[in-house]
Amino acid sequence: MITPNPTSSDAASELHIPRGFLFAAGLAGIKASGKPDLAYAEAPDGATAAAMFTTNRVAAAPVEIGRAHLRSSKGRVRAVLVNSGNANCATGPRGLSACEQICVRAANMLGASAREIFPSSTGVIGVPLPADKILAALPGLIAAKCATLEAAMSFTRAIMTTDTRPKLASAAFHTGSGTVKIFGVAKGSGMIHPRMATMLVYLFTDAAASPAELRRALKPAADDTLNCISVDGDTSTNDTVLLMASGASGSRLSGATAKKFQRHLYEVCDSLAQQIVSDGEGVQHVVCLRIEQARSRDEAVRVARAIANSPLVKTAWAGSDPNWGRILSSVGNSGVPVNPGTINIFFGDQCVCRKGVANPFDAHAAHAYLSQPAFELRVQLGRGKASAKFLTCDLTAEYVSINADYTT
Amino acid sequence: MITPNPTSSDAASELHIPRGFLFAAGLAGIKASGKPDLAYAEAPDGATAAAMFTTNRVAAAPVEIGRAHLRSSKGRVRAVLVNSGNANCATGPRGLSACEQICVRAANMLGASAREIFPSSTGVIGVPLPADKILAALPGLIAAKCATLEAAMSFTRAIMTTDTRPKLASAAFHTGSGTVKIFGVAKGSGMIHPRMATMLVYLFTDAAASPAELRRALKPAADDTLNCISVDGDTSTNDTVLLMASGASGSRLSGATAKKFQRHLYEVCDSLAQQIVSDGEGVQHVVCLRIEQARSRDEAVRVARAIANSPLVKTAWAGSDPNWGRILSSVGNSGVPVNPGTINIFFGDQCVCRKGVANPFDAHAAHAYLSQPAFELRVQLGRGKASAKFLTCDLTAEYVSINADYTT
Repeated sequence: MITPNPTSSDAASELHIPRGFLFAAGLAGIKASGKPDLAYAEAPDGATAAAMFTTNRVAAAPVEIGRAHLRSSKGRVRAVLVNSGNANCATGPRGLSACEQICVRAANMLGASAREIFPSSTGVIGVPLPADKILAALPGLIAAKCATLEAAMSFTRAIMTTDTRPKLASAAFHTGSGTVKIFGVAKGSGMIHPRMATMLVYLFTDAAASPAELRRALKPAADDTLNCISVDGDTSTNDTVLLMASGASGSRLSGATAKKFQRHLYEVCDSLAQQIVSDGEGVQHVVCLRIEQARSRDEAVRVARAIANSPLVKTAWAGSDPNWGRILSSVGNSGVPVNPGTINIFFGDQCVCRKGVANPFDAHAAHAYLSQPAFELRVQLGRGKASAKFLTCDLTAEYVSINADYTT
Repeated sequence: MITPNPTSSDAASELHIPRGFLFAAGLAGIKASGKPDLAYAEAPDGATAAAMFTTNRVAAAPVEIGRAHLRSSKGRVRAVLVNSGNANCATGPRGLSACEQICVRAANMLGASAREIFPSSTGVIGVPLPADKILAALPGLIAAKCATLEAAMSFTRAIMTTDTRPKLASAAFHTGSGTVKIFGVAKGSGMIHPRMATMLVYLFTDAAASPAELRRALKPAADDTLNCISVDGDTSTNDTVLLMASGASGSRLSGATAKKFQRHLYEVCDSLAQQIVSDGEGVQHVVCLRIEQARSRDEAVRVARAIANSPLVKTAWAGSDPNWGRILSSVGNSGVPVNPGTINIFFGDQCVCRKGVANPFDAHAAHAYLSQPAFELRVQLGRGKASAKFLTCDLTAEYVSINADYTT
């Protein structure tokens, strides 16, 4: 169910890279670590696309420009250009023009229009983007593009910031006219509490689809997976999910193919969501919350977010402490008008709270259960029939030390 | 402005204990540490009272019973009985009857009605209250009551849980008919994010006032102080503020006396609020947020809560890191429809963000400013003229270790 700590080698062995895309990574010198900080993906024959963005009112320059480009190109993308190490957020008009300048230069090199370039940035907020460094690195970056698995892997590594490992997932299925492949990569480790969108996620497929068909497929898949995770309750300024379709498989998204595509897209998104939480900053435990018996799915998600964002619940998980009282208290703070007398809480199969009061349980076994790298918590609200699954993690001393000293 | 780390001896030297109250502390054996866990305050001639309670839907048994008693006694209280070490929350009907049983026994000993006994509990959630231990300790507790400063101090210590020091404040002022004194005590260190009410706070005065007059005085004083703090964003199940007036000063709360009372009550609440945040679990820095240029006070408080509850902002404070981009991002997540282009952020007198973008500042000086035990952050929204002050603190590795292992 949960796949914590997937290694990149495990994942890479079963990767399906869709036809119609080229990948590259480069080094602009934005990251102090000297690690790759530019990622590039191109659809030489163009691609249709759909995207979702952060709901944070403080949106980064590439989010504004990516949204505008997608609108003016009517959902067509030629290339994605991502830099890590700088979010290009809170950088004002200069940040917008730096981003636009980079898109124009890349478009010129490709003989494309700037609105077909989709930009992304991730890293520290409020520092001017060093556009010159990126412009200088562009020719080498674009020249290096190729369709190999290794190039796709280098793209994945170049978008990382505090991530300790690359996150990727893929799927393939057969249709009457051939094989459709989906390949997705993600970055994200802190500032993870996507609402309406998520961290940087790029999904590539060789299916043939209109932008509207892609939008219809992307929203439900992302809402149930990438929009149902939280590391630290902070919604980022740069959250972006982009789905691009090259059409190179020759298979159109219609009828049975559309249904298969939807299912496989969901699986890829679900795997990426799990990988993001597993690699959350300082994470020791990945927690799958199952909220049941809610009046609506929305209500179930609200309860899940309240549990996932409670520092007292998250620190108890860090200590494998079966302190279910804190979970009940956070349900009470969710804004949902719950009645404590109808709430049940389970650690795995063990019921620890029944109808709002302690249910005798084996504390030793509960501690052992909560000591696992991944475990499941179930909360039944006794209000209705709707449910939701939500992935989150513990809050550890390591999270604090990672984040106490990020810019200085 | 902020008084971090006030020592109890400093505070005690200027304490004004109102006439008409007796205090005591005792040991029921609820706390594993063997420290005092029962606190008792009595108004031998009775007192009028007003109270505010948690808005958490999972409210503890003493909150339900305290609210019901106050209603049925029409705002009259004879004695307050507090136990620490057990919250008597998520304990169901048994928890309610244990609480009621204790009130009845105390009332019998005083020749009073059970509805004049105001109960409170604080500690771990979901563990049955050991009523027998409390009943056994009651006679000794009540026999020990006296009006001394020492007895009042022992009350303050007996309500502590993870608090490292007692929290108390007092004020006195002259009226035509004598001196009115106010004495307040508080506990609270974790699960601090009061909404409509706050942690355990008991305010005693010898003014003469009707319950309605007390309610009119208490709400604005608590809303601007005890309701404007956050340690960890978790609203407790047991939050209670109680104001009791013995009338022993002979001064009625009317005209100029009411105004003076309001001002002094505010000061006592404000001091207690500061003491609670200063003693927050693992706190290294107390942060005073001043949100300005909001459309309404409510909007300003919403922005303050978003900043105060962001783990990324709080961990940056732990590292004295001038990472203002995270502050801007959390403002963007507040739910208030801000325009980043009109937002200014100040660390003390230094403007670090102007109109949503970096304002050149001395990073060394900013780091030194944020290294102080207490500092001030100002955020101007550029939307209107309303403002709010909100007290909060950093999130440290020590907070995590305190809370990773609380019940086990």
